[in-house]
Amino acid sequence: MTRYQNLASILSQRIEQGLYPIGVRLPSIRVLSKEHGVSITTVQQAYRELEDQQLVEARAKSGYFVARRKMRPGLPDCCNTTQCSLTIPQWDRVLDMVNPVQPGETAFRFAAPDITASSLKPLTRSLSHLSQRQYLRTFDDEDIRGSFELREQIARLMIDSGSRMDAGNILITDGCREALSIAIRCVCAPGDVVAVEKPCFHAGLQLLHGLGMNMLEIPTDPVTGISVEALELALEQWPVKAILVTPTGNNPLGYNMPIERRKALLRLAQEHDVAIIEDDAYGELSYPYPRPATITSMDFTGNVLLCSSFSKTLAPGLRVGWIAPGSYMNRAIHMKYVSTGPTASLPQLAIVDFITQGHYLKHVRRMRSQYQHNRDLITRWVTDYFPCGTRISRPQGGFLLWVELDHRIDTQRLNRALSEQNISIAIGAVFSAAGKYDSCLRINFARQPTTELKNAVRQIGVAIHQLLEEK
Amino acid sequence: MTRYQNLASILSQRIEQGLYPIGVRLPSIRVLSKEHGVSITTVQQAYRELEDQQLVEARAKSGYFVARRKMRPGLPDCCNTTQCSLTIPQWDRVLDMVNPVQPGETAFRFAAPDITASSLKPLTRSLSHLSQRQYLRTFDDEDIRGSFELREQIARLMIDSGSRMDAGNILITDGCREALSIAIRCVCAPGDVVAVEKPCFHAGLQLLHGLGMNMLEIPTDPVTGISVEALELALEQWPVKAILVTPTGNNPLGYNMPIERRKALLRLAQEHDVAIIEDDAYGELSYPYPRPATITSMDFTGNVLLCSSFSKTLAPGLRVGWIAPGSYMNRAIHMKYVSTGPTASLPQLAIVDFITQGHYLKHVRRMRSQYQHNRDLITRWVTDYFPCGTRISRPQGGFLLWVELDHRIDTQRLNRALSEQNISIAIGAVFSAAGKYDSCLRINFARQPTTELKNAVRQIGVAIHQLLEEK
Ligand SMILES: Cc1ncc(COP(=O)(O)O)c(C=O)c1O
Ligand SMILES: Cc1ncc(COP(=O)(O)O)c(C=O)c1O
Repeated sequence: MTRYQNLASILSQRIEQGLYPIGVRLPSIRVLSKEHGVSITTVQQAYRELEDQQLVEARAKSGYFVARRKMRPGLPDCCNTTQCSLTIPQWDRVLDMVNPVQPGETAFRFAAPDITASSLKPLTRSLSHLSQRQYLRTFDDEDIRGSFELREQIARLMIDSGSRMDAGNILITDGCREALSIAIRCVCAPGDVVAVEKPCFHAGLQLLHGLGMNMLEIPTDPVTGISVEALELALEQWPVKAILVTPTGNNPLGYNMPIERRKALLRLAQEHDVAIIEDDAYGELSYPYPRPATITSMDFTGNVLLCSSFSKTLAPGLRVGWIAPGSYMNRAIHMKYVSTGPTASLPQLAIVDFITQGHYLKHVRRMRSQYQHNRDLITRWVTDYFPCGTRISRPQGGFLLWVELDHRIDTQRLNRALSEQNISIAIGAVFSAAGKYDSCLRINFARQPTTELKNAVRQIGVAIHQLLEEK
Repeated sequence: MTRYQNLASILSQRIEQGLYPIGVRLPSIRVLSKEHGVSITTVQQAYRELEDQQLVEARAKSGYFVARRKMRPGLPDCCNTTQCSLTIPQWDRVLDMVNPVQPGETAFRFAAPDITASSLKPLTRSLSHLSQRQYLRTFDDEDIRGSFELREQIARLMIDSGSRMDAGNILITDGCREALSIAIRCVCAPGDVVAVEKPCFHAGLQLLHGLGMNMLEIPTDPVTGISVEALELALEQWPVKAILVTPTGNNPLGYNMPIERRKALLRLAQEHDVAIIEDDAYGELSYPYPRPATITSMDFTGNVLLCSSFSKTLAPGLRVGWIAPGSYMNRAIHMKYVSTGPTASLPQLAIVDFITQGHYLKHVRRMRSQYQHNRDLITRWVTDYFPCGTRISRPQGGFLLWVELDHRIDTQRLNRALSEQNISIAIGAVFSAAGKYDSCLRINFARQPTTELKNAVRQIGVAIHQLLEEK
């Protein structure tokens, strides 16, 4: 094959495959010449060949387009092999819920922070600056433990939570989820029993399912957190290996577990030699300041593993988190090495910039007060627009409100009704493996309040009233 | 506590903890005021308080410094709990080998591409541009499957490997390692047997160890790849669940497995209903052009899973890879969701830019020819400087040379000798779980050749001669 025939055949394959659909403009001669490293003349010859085959048509001054013609019969559908099925409780519903946001959607369903705050702007400058000026560092692999500077800064930030660590106690991960996944695998093997809060955030439950763990759901109070008493009974009856808790700015309930109960939980875990995995993703978004000390900071045994990330304090798209794995650092590094390798360099370096220039604490302080203020507003709106008898949480941190409706309401039906108005909520059912909470929902209140948001909350209220009337 | 006392206490904690070491300049008043959201006066008061405590000292016109003084006795070392040990074959050696590069080191030990190529420059521009102009998109979570545009572009690129896929068949991952880790967990459970090439790249072996798999090492020819005959015998004797192979630009041997042997391997796997995991990380760096078709492209059953990334073709620090998991897409998505969540947004969008503007294929073509040219040079250098009887691979893709020395040489000793000259190689021992290849080494030849590199290869030769004379 000559060069132009070769190029023509590649292009015709792409057209047949539908990568360039009918009517679409094809890449310019210049772009193709660069892409394939052939001369302008070669590309022109290739396009002429395709014209002869009636696959493309030239239009004066606008270039080449995929010709409108009767499609040739499709190719055998070789890649669409039958899919193996997957049966994990609630997964289909979770998958629905984490679908990308739709155009025009008012999305209350995500656990996403407000990323439009102007105090985040310096981070975009750092990203931009580093990707140009230090591109060799950003293209290179980082240390498998993560950037030393970043770990040092995180150790410094953790002082506020009562912890005295240094860079050597911390491992950077691809978000809090990788931290949790590593933590679970540090202390458990598939088939082990893990105690969780009930309700528990859905990614946590899915994670335990995915790693083959058995879950024990422990009653959890909307103000004081996981019931230490119920847990004690459970530990006597079950071979529990780990307890997964989110004691600060809990998702979905929003509570800050009181210090005394944290201590009691730690004591219990130590007595039974059970590991605690402490999810601190919302820790710095606690409204009370200074924030409550982490359980990790009270531990001397090394059997408490702290997991966190910048997903809630800065932005989820950065995918930078960390684990302080106590006495499991060796295992944690090995798991990090084999699960994903080092975490991407650029966001790590940009976050170091952002922290050391003093923007981080300022931003977090600002978001804390925004979220606290929004909490008051959303509480008022829900009180005003939702039916009497509705119960709601009293968040002490973060940006999530838990709502319990009349038990006759199924929030999955509610969500379907709301979808006509392009509004979405998180349904309660996915927050328990045992399939409770059908009448509950979770609302995100991170964004700056607007009339549009207020109206959307009102519309949710109207939809609930309507569902009640249908009964 | 007043505001300034509060700030003073935070700063004194940081000093005591050693985060601000003795003699170091402390953050400026302006930075602290921003960081803690307090007035300039408050910071000044706090610094004065610390001066009184003789913790800091002011120096005219340069700010505050951590005072030189007798340190107070340290705090109880509560975070340095005893570490749980980890016994995984070769792990300590691998960890040594993947340590960050030392200042002044001539590092032949990594499997890293040349990231200094000017044809990569447009990627830095895209990263910089997107992080400023589309920062809301880059701060937001991507689709759990990865950017649709990126998956579409990958499908397009994969046409050259004989595959006809669309975006729906592809899942973006945090590098090839996450793809491999997902692939293994799609088709195997802990305790299962996986057949691997011998030698096999060390991250692959570590990954299988980390996931609790048992490995069966199959003899592998430096020109034609894994022995299909030996594999056939193995499949009759062992309950093998998956075969992990890198048929194109193999790491460490560099071969391209001939098409006929790929077909034979596929046939064998299909007969025994065993999954193939095809690592194609070096696929586009095959010197012969067009590149060999992947085994994945020949499969109709959905039981071949392709794993790849942009780590070898673009830059490892981006951490963007993908998996085409055949019939296991449902499982793969769930594992992605629970292992790390979505892959970071910014690098995905920047790569889309880079591909659609025609830079990608141009860059890859250029690197292919650079690597092929370097292969010829390194072959000459090793021939000239290493002892007679040295055996070397004939890479057909990628940038790695495998060298077999006189069996009396232990390349771990060689590496220690070389460390005095700040030169490092990859030792052979880590490429086999059974602990063979003590006299082998792997050399990276990605970079543009320089006299310095040539001299370093010569120094390796000299060190080998010396070790031989000691015998
Ligand atoms: C309690 C909790 N932990 C962890 C995560 C996941 O964090 P990341 O996005 O950093 O993986 C979330 C996000 O929903 C969360 O709510
Ligand atoms: C064959 C092979 N597969 C996978 C990887 C890992 O790739 P990534 O850096 O994208 O995780 C490497 C890197 O050493 C490799 O050589």
